[in-house]
Amino acid sequence: MGRATARRRVVRLRGAEFSSRPDALAAEEPLEIRVGGEALTVTMRTPGHDFDLVAGFLVGEGLAHATDDLAALRYCAGTDEDGANTYNVVDATLRSGAALPLSAHRNLLTTSACGLCGRDTVEAVRTHLRRPVADDPLLVSPELLYALPDRLRAAQRTFDSTGGLHAAGLFDADGRLLCAREDVGRHNAVDKVVGWALREGLLPLAGHVLLVSGRASFELTQKAALAGVPLLAAVSAPSSLAADLAEELGLTLVGFLRGHSANVYTRADRVTAVRAGAEPVAGP
Amino acid sequence: MGRATARRRVVRLRGAEFSSRPDALAAEEPLEIRVGGEALTVTMRTPGHDFDLVAGFLVGEGLAHATDDLAALRYCAGTDEDGANTYNVVDATLRSGAALPLSAHRNLLTTSACGLCGRDTVEAVRTHLRRPVADDPLLVSPELLYALPDRLRAAQRTFDSTGGLHAAGLFDADGRLLCAREDVGRHNAVDKVVGWALREGLLPLAGHVLLVSGRASFELTQKAALAGVPLLAAVSAPSSLAADLAEELGLTLVGFLRGHSANVYTRADRVTAVRAGAEPVAGP
Repeated sequence: MGRATARRRVVRLRGAEFSSRPDALAAEEPLEIRVGGEALTVTMRTPGHDFDLVAGFLVGEGLAHATDDLAALRYCAGTDEDGANTYNVVDATLRSGAALPLSAHRNLLTTSACGLCGRDTVEAVRTHLRRPVADDPLLVSPELLYALPDRLRAAQRTFDSTGGLHAAGLFDADGRLLCAREDVGRHNAVDKVVGWALREGLLPLAGHVLLVSGRASFELTQKAALAGVPLLAAVSAPSSLAADLAEELGLTLVGFLRGHSANVYTRADRVTAVRAGAEPVAGP
Repeated sequence: MGRATARRRVVRLRGAEFSSRPDALAAEEPLEIRVGGEALTVTMRTPGHDFDLVAGFLVGEGLAHATDDLAALRYCAGTDEDGANTYNVVDATLRSGAALPLSAHRNLLTTSACGLCGRDTVEAVRTHLRRPVADDPLLVSPELLYALPDRLRAAQRTFDSTGGLHAAGLFDADGRLLCAREDVGRHNAVDKVVGWALREGLLPLAGHVLLVSGRASFELTQKAALAGVPLLAAVSAPSSLAADLAEELGLTLVGFLRGHSANVYTRADRVTAVRAGAEPVAGP
Protein backbone atom coordinates (compact mmCIF):
# COMPACT_ATOMS: atom_id res chain seq x y z
CA MET A 1 0.00 0.00 0.00
CA GLY A 2 1.30 3.39 -0.84
CA ARG A 3 4.37 2.19 -2.65
CA ALA A 4 5.56 3.76 -5.88
CA THR A 5 6.45 0.42 -7.44
CA ALA A 6 4.97 -3.07 -7.46
CA ARG A 7 6.69 -6.32 -8.36
CA ARG A 8 5.24 -8.59 -11.00
CA ARG A 9 6.57 -11.67 -12.78
CA VAL A 10 7.47 -10.96 -16.41
CA VAL A 11 8.46 -13.07 -19.41
CA ARG A 12 11.27 -11.31 -21.25
CA LEU A 13 11.50 -11.98 -24.98
CA ARG A 14 14.93 -11.36 -26.49
CA GLY A 15 14.97 -12.35 -30.13
CA ALA A 16 13.60 -15.91 -30.25
CA GLU A 17 14.55 -16.67 -26.64
CA PHE A 18 12.71 -15.96 -23.45
CA SER A 19 13.30 -15.87 -19.73
CA SER A 20 11.11 -15.33 -16.71
CA ARG A 21 11.94 -13.00 -13.83
CA PRO A 22 10.43 -10.50 -11.39
CA ASP A 23 10.15 -6.93 -12.60
CA ALA A 24 9.27 -3.60 -10.98
CA LEU A 25 6.23 -1.79 -12.39
CA ALA A 26 5.10 1.74 -11.65
CA ALA A 27 2.26 1.43 -9.15
CA GLU A 28 -1.13 2.73 -10.26
CA GLU A 29 -4.15 2.91 -7.97
CA PRO A 30 -7.36 4.96 -7.94
CA LEU A 31 -7.62 7.94 -5.61
CA GLU A 32 -11.04 9.38 -4.89
CA ILE A 33 -10.91 13.11 -4.19
CA ARG A 34 -13.70 14.46 -2.00
CA VAL A 35 -14.39 18.05 -0.98
CA GLY A 36 -16.42 18.48 2.17
CA GLY A 37 -17.37 14.83 2.00
CA GLU A 38 -18.68 15.04 -1.56
CA ALA A 39 -16.96 12.97 -4.23
CA LEU A 40 -15.44 15.23 -6.87
CA THR A 41 -13.43 12.84 -9.04
CA VAL A 42 -11.32 9.72 -9.13
CA THR A 43 -7.84 9.87 -10.56
CA MET A 44 -5.56 6.95 -11.37
CA ARG A 45 -2.32 7.81 -9.64
CA THR A 46 0.90 6.42 -8.24
CA PRO A 47 0.46 6.23 -4.44
CA GLY A 48 2.53 8.67 -2.42
CA HIS A 49 2.26 12.42 -1.77
CA ASP A 50 -1.52 12.04 -1.90
CA PHE A 51 -2.22 15.20 0.11
CA ASP A 52 -0.02 17.16 -2.25
CA LEU A 53 -1.89 15.62 -5.17
CA VAL A 54 -5.28 16.62 -3.79
CA ALA A 55 -4.11 20.13 -2.87
CA GLY A 56 -2.63 20.65 -6.32
CA PHE A 57 -5.71 19.27 -8.01
CA LEU A 58 -7.85 21.82 -6.17
CA VAL A 59 -5.53 24.62 -7.29
CA GLY A 60 -5.88 23.46 -10.90
CA GLU A 61 -9.66 23.49 -10.54
CA GLY A 62 -9.67 27.03 -9.19
CA LEU A 63 -10.94 25.81 -5.81
CA ALA A 64 -7.85 26.80 -3.79
CA HIS A 65 -5.38 29.64 -4.29
CA ALA A 66 -3.35 29.84 -1.09
CA THR A 67 -2.44 27.71 1.92
CA ASP A 68 -5.25 29.17 4.02
CA ASP A 69 -7.88 28.03 1.54
CA LEU A 70 -7.38 24.44 2.72
CA ALA A 71 -8.69 23.94 6.24
CA ALA A 72 -7.92 20.21 6.36
CA LEU A 73 -6.89 17.16 4.36
CA ARG A 74 -7.53 13.69 5.69
CA TYR A 75 -7.70 10.10 4.54
CA CYS A 76 -11.14 8.53 4.72
CA ALA A 77 -10.06 5.22 6.07
CA GLY A 78 -11.65 2.54 3.96
CA THR A 79 -10.80 -1.08 4.46
CA ASP A 80 -10.35 -3.82 1.95
CA GLU A 81 -11.69 -7.33 2.44
CA ASP A 82 -8.68 -8.22 4.57
CA GLY A 83 -9.43 -5.30 6.87
CA ALA A 84 -6.38 -3.35 5.74
CA ASN A 85 -6.67 0.40 5.31
CA THR A 86 -6.81 1.26 1.65
CA TYR A 87 -5.83 4.92 1.90
CA ASN A 88 -7.38 5.62 -1.47
CA VAL A 89 -9.90 8.28 -0.50
CA VAL A 90 -8.86 11.78 0.56
CA ASP A 91 -11.35 14.38 1.81
CA ALA A 92 -10.45 18.07 1.64
CA THR A 93 -12.14 20.69 3.77
CA LEU A 94 -12.07 24.17 2.26
CA ARG A 95 -11.98 27.25 4.39
CA SER A 96 -15.46 28.73 4.33
CA GLY A 97 -15.71 31.20 1.50
CA ALA A 98 -12.36 30.21 0.12
CA ALA A 99 -13.69 29.17 -3.23
CA LEU A 100 -16.70 28.80 -5.42
CA PRO A 101 -19.48 26.84 -3.80
CA LEU A 102 -19.07 23.27 -4.95
CA SER A 103 -22.60 23.31 -6.36
CA ALA A 104 -21.39 25.90 -8.85
CA HIS A 105 -18.56 23.59 -9.75
CA ARG A 106 -20.42 20.48 -10.79
CA ASN A 107 -18.33 20.14 -13.88
CA LEU A 108 -14.59 20.01 -13.41
CA LEU A 109 -12.78 22.84 -15.08
CA THR A 110 -10.55 20.36 -16.88
CA THR A 111 -13.51 18.44 -18.31
CA SER A 112 -16.20 21.08 -18.29
CA ALA A 113 -18.82 21.34 -20.95
CA CYS A 114 -18.42 25.05 -21.45
CA GLY A 115 -15.82 24.74 -24.15
CA LEU A 116 -17.39 24.33 -27.55
CA CYS A 117 -14.29 25.66 -29.17
CA GLY A 118 -10.75 26.27 -28.11
CA ARG A 119 -11.32 29.99 -27.71
CA ASP A 120 -14.15 29.45 -25.18
CA THR A 121 -11.98 26.99 -23.31
CA VAL A 122 -9.14 29.46 -23.01
CA GLU A 123 -11.61 32.09 -21.83
CA ALA A 124 -13.02 29.75 -19.16
CA VAL A 125 -9.60 29.37 -17.62
CA ARG A 126 -9.04 33.11 -17.62
CA THR A 127 -12.07 33.62 -15.37
CA HIS A 128 -10.50 31.38 -12.73
CA LEU A 129 -7.20 33.24 -12.56
CA ARG A 130 -6.78 35.38 -9.48
CA ARG A 131 -3.30 36.63 -10.24
CA PRO A 132 -2.22 37.15 -13.84
CA VAL A 133 1.19 35.81 -14.77
CA ALA A 134 1.60 38.25 -17.68
CA ASP A 135 3.42 40.84 -15.56
CA ASP A 136 5.84 38.41 -13.90
CA PRO A 137 9.36 39.86 -14.43
CA LEU A 138 11.08 36.44 -14.51
CA LEU A 139 14.14 36.42 -16.77
CA VAL A 140 16.16 33.26 -17.49
CA SER A 141 19.16 32.53 -19.64
CA PRO A 142 19.20 29.75 -22.26
CA GLU A 143 21.94 28.03 -20.21
CA LEU A 144 19.72 27.96 -17.14
CA LEU A 145 16.94 26.32 -19.16
CA TYR A 146 19.29 23.75 -20.69
CA ALA A 147 20.43 22.64 -17.22
CA LEU A 148 16.94 21.83 -15.89
CA PRO A 149 16.12 18.44 -17.47
CA ASP A 150 19.25 16.79 -16.06
CA ARG A 151 18.45 18.13 -12.61
CA LEU A 152 14.92 16.75 -12.75
CA ARG A 153 16.10 13.43 -14.11
CA ALA A 154 18.65 13.10 -11.32
CA ALA A 155 15.82 13.47 -8.81
CA GLN A 156 13.66 10.78 -10.38
CA ARG A 157 13.92 7.71 -8.25
CA THR A 158 11.27 5.44 -9.63
CA PHE A 159 11.62 6.02 -13.35
CA ASP A 160 14.94 4.24 -13.47
CA SER A 161 13.45 1.08 -12.05
CA THR A 162 10.20 1.06 -13.99
CA GLY A 163 10.51 3.36 -17.00
CA GLY A 164 6.85 4.09 -16.33
CA LEU A 165 6.57 7.48 -14.70
CA HIS A 166 6.09 11.05 -15.73
CA ALA A 167 7.91 13.69 -13.73
CA ALA A 168 7.39 17.33 -12.86
CA GLY A 169 9.90 19.64 -11.20
CA LEU A 170 9.61 23.09 -9.68
CA PHE A 171 12.64 25.38 -9.92
CA ASP A 172 13.37 28.84 -8.57
CA ALA A 173 14.60 31.68 -10.79
CA ASP A 174 18.20 30.52 -10.29
CA GLY A 175 17.44 27.02 -11.54
CA ARG A 176 17.49 25.35 -8.13
CA LEU A 177 15.20 22.33 -7.97
CA LEU A 178 12.72 22.85 -5.12
CA CYS A 179 10.44 19.86 -5.60
CA ALA A 180 10.27 16.86 -7.94
CA ARG A 181 7.40 14.40 -8.18
CA GLU A 182 6.68 11.31 -10.28
CA ASP A 183 3.41 9.69 -11.27
CA VAL A 184 1.89 7.38 -13.87
CA GLY A 185 -0.28 10.37 -14.83
CA ARG A 186 1.51 13.47 -16.03
CA HIS A 187 -1.24 15.74 -14.67
CA ASN A 188 -0.84 14.06 -11.29
CA ALA A 189 2.91 14.74 -11.22
CA VAL A 190 2.16 18.45 -11.76
CA ASP A 191 -0.63 18.41 -9.16
CA LYS A 192 1.76 16.90 -6.62
CA VAL A 193 4.32 19.64 -7.21
CA VAL A 194 1.75 22.44 -7.10
CA GLY A 195 0.11 20.95 -4.02
CA TRP A 196 3.50 20.76 -2.29
CA ALA A 197 4.01 24.45 -3.07
CA LEU A 198 0.54 25.35 -1.78
CA ARG A 199 1.15 23.53 1.49
CA GLU A 200 4.58 25.20 1.79
CA GLY A 201 2.96 28.59 1.44
CA LEU A 202 4.67 29.35 -1.88
CA LEU A 203 1.59 30.08 -4.00
CA PRO A 204 1.30 31.96 -6.26
CA LEU A 205 4.55 30.72 -7.78
CA ALA A 206 5.76 34.06 -9.12
CA GLY A 207 9.30 33.89 -10.47
CA HIS A 208 9.32 30.08 -10.68
CA VAL A 209 9.81 27.59 -13.50
CA LEU A 210 7.81 24.36 -13.89
CA LEU A 211 9.34 21.55 -15.98
CA VAL A 212 7.47 18.46 -17.19
CA SER A 213 9.13 15.34 -18.59
CA GLY A 214 6.67 14.86 -21.44
CA ARG A 215 4.46 17.03 -23.57
CA ALA A 216 2.74 20.28 -22.72
CA SER A 217 -1.02 19.96 -23.11
CA PHE A 218 -3.74 22.52 -22.55
CA GLU A 219 -4.44 20.93 -19.15
CA LEU A 220 -0.86 21.24 -17.92
CA THR A 221 -0.64 24.84 -19.11
CA GLN A 222 -3.86 25.57 -17.25
CA LYS A 223 -2.48 24.01 -14.08
CA ALA A 224 0.72 26.07 -14.36
CA ALA A 225 -1.24 29.30 -14.88
CA LEU A 226 -3.58 28.68 -11.95
CA ALA A 227 -0.54 28.07 -9.74
CA GLY A 228 0.88 31.41 -10.88
CA VAL A 229 3.91 29.95 -12.70
CA PRO A 230 5.23 32.33 -15.40
CA LEU A 231 7.29 29.74 -17.31
CA LEU A 232 6.28 26.18 -18.24
CA ALA A 233 8.95 24.06 -19.94
CA ALA A 234 8.42 20.63 -21.49
CA VAL A 235 10.92 18.09 -22.75
CA SER A 236 8.57 17.25 -25.63
CA ALA A 237 6.06 19.05 -27.85
CA PRO A 238 3.27 21.41 -26.83
CA SER A 239 -0.19 21.30 -28.36
CA SER A 240 -1.78 24.17 -30.27
CA LEU A 241 -4.21 24.93 -27.46
CA ALA A 242 -1.41 24.94 -24.88
CA ALA A 243 0.32 27.62 -26.96
CA ASP A 244 -2.94 29.55 -27.39
CA LEU A 245 -3.61 29.54 -23.65
CA ALA A 246 -0.04 30.54 -22.82
CA GLU A 247 -0.24 33.37 -25.35
CA GLU A 248 -3.53 34.60 -23.97
CA LEU A 249 -2.31 34.56 -20.36
CA GLY A 250 1.21 35.88 -20.93
CA LEU A 251 2.88 32.67 -19.78
CA THR A 252 6.20 31.62 -21.33
CA LEU A 253 5.85 28.19 -22.95
CA VAL A 254 9.05 26.27 -23.78
CA GLY A 255 9.03 22.93 -25.62
CA PHE A 256 11.57 20.40 -26.89
CA LEU A 257 13.96 21.37 -24.10
CA ARG A 258 16.77 18.93 -24.89
CA GLY A 259 20.52 19.27 -24.76
CA HIS A 260 21.45 22.82 -25.71
CA SER A 261 18.31 23.70 -27.60
CA ALA A 262 14.70 24.59 -26.98
CA ASN A 263 11.69 26.13 -28.69
CA VAL A 264 9.94 29.09 -27.10
CA TYR A 265 6.34 29.39 -28.24
CA THR A 266 5.15 32.38 -26.26
CA ARG A 267 6.58 35.32 -24.30
CA ALA A 268 10.15 34.66 -25.42
CA ASP A 269 11.08 38.02 -23.91
CA ARG A 270 11.61 36.17 -20.62
CA VAL A 271 14.75 34.61 -22.14
CA THR A 272 17.85 36.81 -21.84
CA ALA A 273 19.13 36.23 -25.37
CA VAL A 274 15.80 37.34 -26.79
CA ARG A 275 15.18 40.15 -24.30
CA ALA A 276 18.51 41.68 -25.21
CA GLY A 277 16.85 42.60 -28.46
CA ALA A 278 19.57 41.13 -30.62
CA GLU A 279 18.53 40.41 -34.13
CA PRO A 280 17.69 36.75 -34.56
CA VAL A 281 20.02 34.77 -36.78
CA ALA A 282 18.44 33.79 -40.07
CA GLY A 283 16.24 30.71 -39.67
CA PRO A 284 16.86 27.68 -41.86
CA MET B 1 -11.06 23.72 -38.01
CA GLY B 2 -10.69 19.99 -38.04
CA ARG B 3 -7.01 20.00 -38.90
CA ALA B 4 -4.49 17.76 -37.17
CA THR B 5 -1.84 20.46 -37.03
CA ALA B 6 -1.79 24.19 -36.43
CA ARG B 7 0.95 26.65 -37.32
CA ARG B 8 2.41 28.94 -34.71
CA ARG B 9 5.41 31.25 -34.64
CA VAL B 10 8.27 29.89 -32.51
CA VAL B 11 11.59 31.21 -31.24
CA ARG B 12 14.22 28.50 -31.58
CA LEU B 13 17.07 28.61 -29.09
CA ARG B 14 20.23 26.84 -30.21
CA GLY B 15 23.00 27.33 -27.69
CA ALA B 16 23.20 31.09 -27.12
CA GLU B 17 21.65 31.96 -30.47
CA PHE B 18 18.04 32.22 -31.49
CA SER B 19 15.93 32.44 -34.59
CA SER B 20 12.24 32.91 -35.27
CA ARG B 21 10.17 30.79 -37.65
CA PRO B 22 6.77 29.17 -38.13
CA ASP B 23 6.33 25.71 -36.63
CA ALA B 24 3.65 23.01 -36.80
CA LEU B 25 1.99 22.02 -33.53
CA ALA B 26 -0.32 19.12 -32.88
CA ALA B 27 -3.83 20.53 -32.83
CA GLU B 28 -5.78 20.18 -29.59
CA GLU B 29 -9.43 21.19 -29.22
CA PRO B 30 -12.21 20.22 -26.83
CA LEU B 31 -14.85 17.74 -28.00
CA GLU B 32 -18.07 17.49 -26.05
CA ILE B 33 -19.58 14.01 -26.20
CA ARG B 34 -23.35 13.81 -25.77
CA VAL B 35 -25.57 10.75 -25.63
CA GLY B 36 -29.20 11.32 -26.48
CA GLY B 37 -28.63 15.04 -26.18
CA GLU B 38 -27.18 14.81 -22.67
CA ALA B 39 -23.60 15.92 -22.13
CA LEU B 40 -21.47 13.02 -20.95
CA THR B 41 -17.95 14.42 -21.00
CA VAL B 42 -15.52 16.75 -22.73
CA THR B 43 -12.24 15.38 -24.01
CA MET B 44 -9.29 17.38 -25.30
CA ARG B 45 -8.52 15.79 -28.64
CA THR B 46 -6.86 16.31 -32.00
CA PRO B 47 -9.65 17.09 -34.49
CA GLY B 48 -10.34 14.43 -37.08
CA HIS B 49 -12.08 11.03 -36.92
CA ASP B 50 -14.44 12.49 -34.33
CA PHE B 51 -17.22 9.96 -34.95
CA ASP B 52 -14.72 7.14 -34.46
CA LEU B 53 -13.56 8.81 -31.25
CA VAL B 54 -17.08 9.03 -29.88
CA ALA B 55 -17.96 5.48 -30.90
CA GLY B 56 -14.80 4.12 -29.32
CA PHE B 57 -15.32 6.15 -26.18
CA LEU B 58 -18.78 4.61 -25.78
CA VAL B 59 -17.28 1.12 -26.17
CA GLY B 60 -14.75 1.89 -23.46
CA GLU B 61 -17.55 3.03 -21.17
CA GLY B 62 -19.53 -0.15 -21.72
CA LEU B 63 -22.29 1.79 -23.50
CA ALA B 64 -21.83 0.18 -26.93
CA HIS B 65 -20.69 -3.30 -27.88
CA ALA B 66 -21.52 -3.71 -31.57
CA THR B 67 -22.30 -1.61 -34.64
CA ASP B 68 -26.05 -1.90 -34.10
CA ASP B 69 -25.82 -0.32 -30.65
CA LEU B 70 -25.21 3.04 -32.28
CA ALA B 71 -28.30 4.35 -34.04
CA ALA B 72 -26.75 7.66 -35.08
CA LEU B 73 -23.81 10.01 -34.67
CA ARG B 74 -24.09 13.64 -35.62
CA TYR B 75 -22.36 16.94 -35.09
CA CYS B 76 -24.33 19.51 -33.09
CA ALA B 77 -23.50 22.50 -35.19
CA GLY B 78 -22.43 25.26 -32.86
CA THR B 79 -21.09 28.52 -34.16
CA ASP B 80 -18.28 30.66 -32.90
CA GLU B 81 -18.42 34.43 -32.71
CA ASP B 82 -17.53 34.73 -36.38
CA GLY B 83 -20.45 32.49 -37.28
CA ALA B 84 -18.22 29.60 -38.30
CA ASN B 85 -19.28 26.07 -37.45
CA THR B 86 -17.19 24.75 -34.58
CA TYR B 87 -17.87 21.04 -35.03
CA ASN B 88 -16.79 20.39 -31.47
CA VAL B 89 -19.93 18.72 -30.15
CA VAL B 90 -20.99 15.21 -31.20
CA ASP B 91 -24.28 13.65 -30.15
CA ALA B 92 -24.66 9.87 -30.18
CA THR B 93 -28.02 8.15 -30.29
CA LEU B 94 -27.99 4.67 -28.83
CA ARG B 95 -30.29 1.94 -30.08
CA SER B 96 -33.04 1.58 -27.53
CA GLY B 97 -32.07 -1.00 -24.98
CA ALA B 98 -28.55 -1.24 -26.32
CA ALA B 99 -26.89 -0.27 -23.08
CA LEU B 100 -27.33 0.73 -19.52
CA PRO B 101 -29.71 3.65 -19.09
CA LEU B 102 -27.60 6.74 -18.95
CA SER B 103 -29.04 7.62 -15.56
CA ALA B 104 -27.34 4.50 -14.21
CA HIS B 105 -24.12 5.72 -15.76
CA ARG B 106 -23.77 9.11 -14.15
CA ASN B 107 -20.16 8.46 -13.33
CA LEU B 108 -17.90 7.51 -16.17
CA LEU B 109 -16.40 4.07 -15.84
CA THR B 110 -12.95 5.54 -16.29
CA THR B 111 -13.43 8.07 -13.49
CA SER B 112 -16.07 6.36 -11.41
CA ALA B 113 -16.11 6.56 -7.67
CA CYS B 114 -16.62 2.84 -7.18
CA GLY B 115 -12.95 2.06 -6.98
CA LEU B 116 -11.63 2.56 -3.50
CA CYS B 117 -8.83 0.16 -4.21
CA GLY B 118 -7.30 -1.36 -7.29
CA ARG B 119 -9.09 -4.64 -6.74
CA ASP B 120 -12.53 -3.00 -6.77
CA THR B 121 -11.59 -1.09 -9.88
CA VAL B 122 -10.61 -4.25 -11.71
CA GLU B 123 -13.86 -5.85 -10.60
CA ALA B 124 -15.89 -2.89 -11.86
CA VAL B 125 -14.50 -3.37 -15.35
CA ARG B 126 -15.28 -7.07 -15.25
CA THR B 127 -18.97 -6.37 -14.81
CA HIS B 128 -19.01 -4.42 -18.10
CA LEU B 129 -17.44 -7.16 -20.19
CA ARG B 130 -19.87 -8.94 -22.46
CA ARG B 131 -17.37 -11.26 -24.09
CA PRO B 132 -14.37 -12.50 -22.12
CA VAL B 133 -11.04 -12.37 -23.91
CA ALA B 134 -9.52 -15.13 -21.77
CA ASP B 135 -10.50 -17.88 -24.22
CA ASP B 136 -9.24 -16.12 -27.34
CA PRO B 137 -6.95 -18.57 -29.17
CA LEU B 138 -4.71 -15.87 -30.67
CA LEU B 139 -1.11 -17.04 -31.08
CA VAL B 140 1.69 -14.73 -32.28
CA SER B 141 5.40 -15.18 -32.83
CA PRO B 142 8.00 -12.88 -31.28
CA GLU B 143 9.00 -11.83 -34.80
CA LEU B 144 5.45 -10.73 -35.56
CA LEU B 145 5.41 -8.60 -32.42
CA TYR B 146 8.80 -7.05 -33.19
CA ALA B 147 7.57 -5.92 -36.63
CA LEU B 148 4.56 -3.95 -35.35
CA PRO B 149 6.08 -0.69 -34.06
CA ASP B 150 7.74 0.12 -37.38
CA ARG B 151 4.48 -0.51 -39.20
CA LEU B 152 2.60 1.83 -36.89
CA ARG B 153 5.28 4.49 -37.10
CA ALA B 154 5.24 4.36 -40.88
CA ALA B 155 1.53 5.14 -40.78
CA GLN B 156 1.92 8.15 -38.49
CA ARG B 157 1.57 11.24 -40.60
CA THR B 158 1.41 14.01 -38.09
CA PHE B 159 3.97 12.93 -35.53
CA ASP B 160 6.83 13.60 -37.89
CA SER B 161 5.81 17.21 -38.31
CA THR B 162 4.91 17.96 -34.70
CA GLY B 163 6.45 15.33 -32.44
CA GLY B 164 3.32 15.80 -30.39
CA LEU B 165 1.02 12.87 -30.98
CA HIS B 166 0.31 9.51 -29.45
CA ALA B 167 -0.58 6.70 -31.82
CA ALA B 168 -2.61 3.50 -31.67
CA GLY B 169 -2.71 0.77 -34.28
CA LEU B 170 -4.98 -2.23 -34.80
CA PHE B 171 -3.43 -5.33 -36.39
CA ASP B 172 -4.88 -8.64 -37.44
CA ALA B 173 -3.39 -11.97 -36.33
CA ASP B 174 -0.96 -11.88 -39.25
CA GLY B 175 0.41 -8.49 -38.22
CA ARG B 176 -1.34 -6.51 -40.96
CA LEU B 177 -2.11 -2.95 -39.92
CA LEU B 178 -5.86 -2.37 -40.26
CA CYS B 179 -6.19 1.07 -38.73
CA ALA B 180 -3.83 3.69 -37.25
CA ARG B 181 -4.88 6.85 -35.46
CA GLU B 182 -3.04 9.73 -33.81
CA ASP B 183 -4.11 12.12 -31.08
CA VAL B 184 -2.70 14.45 -28.44
CA GLY B 185 -4.40 12.14 -25.93
CA ARG B 186 -3.31 8.53 -25.88
CA HIS B 187 -6.75 7.36 -24.76
CA ASN B 188 -8.27 9.25 -27.69
CA ALA B 189 -5.99 7.48 -30.18
CA VAL B 190 -7.24 4.13 -28.84
CA ASP B 191 -10.86 5.30 -28.87
CA LYS B 192 -10.50 6.34 -32.51
CA VAL B 193 -9.18 2.91 -33.47
CA VAL B 194 -11.83 1.03 -31.48
CA GLY B 195 -14.58 3.30 -32.81
CA TRP B 196 -13.39 2.68 -36.36
CA ALA B 197 -13.61 -1.04 -35.70
CA LEU B 198 -17.10 -0.71 -34.21
CA ARG B 199 -18.34 1.20 -37.22
CA GLU B 200 -16.72 -1.34 -39.57
CA GLY B 201 -18.59 -4.13 -37.81
CA LEU B 202 -15.43 -5.75 -36.45
CA LEU B 203 -16.32 -5.78 -32.75
CA PRO B 204 -15.55 -7.74 -30.67
CA LEU B 205 -11.94 -7.70 -31.89
CA ALA B 206 -11.21 -11.39 -31.31
CA GLY B 207 -7.86 -12.45 -32.74
CA HIS B 208 -6.57 -8.87 -33.05
CA VAL B 209 -3.61 -6.99 -31.60
CA LEU B 210 -3.73 -3.39 -30.37
CA LEU B 211 -0.46 -1.43 -30.21
CA VAL B 212 0.01 1.89 -28.44
CA SER B 213 3.00 4.19 -28.91
CA GLY B 214 3.40 5.04 -25.23
CA ARG B 215 2.69 3.39 -21.91
CA ALA B 216 -0.02 0.92 -20.99
CA SER B 217 -2.21 2.31 -18.22
CA PHE B 218 -5.19 0.75 -16.50
CA GLU B 219 -7.46 2.85 -18.69
CA LEU B 220 -5.97 1.66 -21.98
CA THR B 221 -6.09 -1.96 -20.83
CA GLN B 222 -9.74 -1.48 -19.93
CA LYS B 223 -10.47 -0.03 -23.35
CA ALA B 224 -8.73 -2.97 -25.05
CA ALA B 225 -10.67 -5.50 -22.98
CA LEU B 226 -14.04 -3.85 -23.61
CA ALA B 227 -13.28 -3.92 -27.34
CA GLY B 228 -12.55 -7.65 -27.08
CA VAL B 229 -8.85 -7.38 -27.95
CA PRO B 230 -6.85 -10.35 -26.57
CA LEU B 231 -3.40 -8.73 -26.87
CA LEU B 232 -2.39 -5.18 -25.95
CA ALA B 233 1.18 -4.17 -26.75
CA ALA B 234 2.90 -0.96 -25.68
CA VAL B 235 6.19 0.57 -26.73
CA SER B 236 6.77 1.71 -23.15
CA ALA B 237 6.06 0.50 -19.63
CA PRO B 238 2.79 -0.80 -18.21
CA SER B 239 1.49 0.16 -14.78
CA SER B 240 0.84 -2.31 -11.97
CA LEU B 241 -2.93 -1.99 -12.31
CA ALA B 242 -2.77 -2.51 -16.06
CA ALA B 243 -0.99 -5.82 -15.40
CA ASP B 244 -3.48 -6.71 -12.67
CA LEU B 245 -6.46 -6.07 -14.94
CA ALA B 246 -4.89 -7.98 -17.83
CA GLU B 247 -4.16 -10.90 -15.51
CA GLU B 248 -7.69 -10.92 -14.16
CA LEU B 249 -9.28 -10.82 -17.62
CA GLY B 250 -6.91 -13.17 -19.40
CA LEU B 251 -5.60 -10.50 -21.75
CA THR B 252 -1.99 -10.68 -22.97
CA LEU B 253 -0.11 -7.52 -21.98
CA VAL B 254 3.18 -6.74 -23.75
CA GLY B 255 5.40 -3.82 -22.79
CA PHE B 256 8.73 -2.32 -23.86
CA LEU B 257 8.18 -3.60 -27.40
CA ARG B 258 11.34 -2.23 -29.01
CA GLY B 259 13.70 -3.63 -31.58
CA HIS B 260 13.92 -7.39 -31.09
CA SER B 261 12.82 -7.51 -27.49
CA ALA B 262 9.68 -7.22 -25.40
CA ASN B 263 8.31 -7.97 -21.94
CA VAL B 264 5.18 -10.09 -21.58
CA TYR B 265 3.41 -9.42 -18.29
CA THR B 266 0.39 -11.68 -18.58
CA ARG B 267 -0.83 -14.65 -20.62
CA ALA B 268 2.54 -15.21 -22.28
CA ASP B 269 1.16 -18.49 -23.62
CA ARG B 270 -0.15 -16.51 -26.59
CA VAL B 271 3.46 -16.13 -27.78
CA THR B 272 4.71 -19.11 -29.82
CA ALA B 273 8.11 -19.36 -28.18
CA VAL B 274 6.50 -19.59 -24.78
CA ARG B 275 3.57 -21.77 -25.82
CA ALA B 276 5.98 -24.31 -27.23
CA GLY B 277 6.80 -25.07 -23.63
CA ALA B 278 10.52 -24.76 -24.07
CA GLU B 279 12.41 -24.19 -20.88
CA PRO B 280 13.20 -20.52 -20.46
CA VAL B 281 16.86 -19.59 -20.64
CA ALA B 282 18.29 -18.56 -17.30
CA GLY B 283 17.48 -14.93 -16.53
CA PRO B 284 20.27 -12.48 -15.80
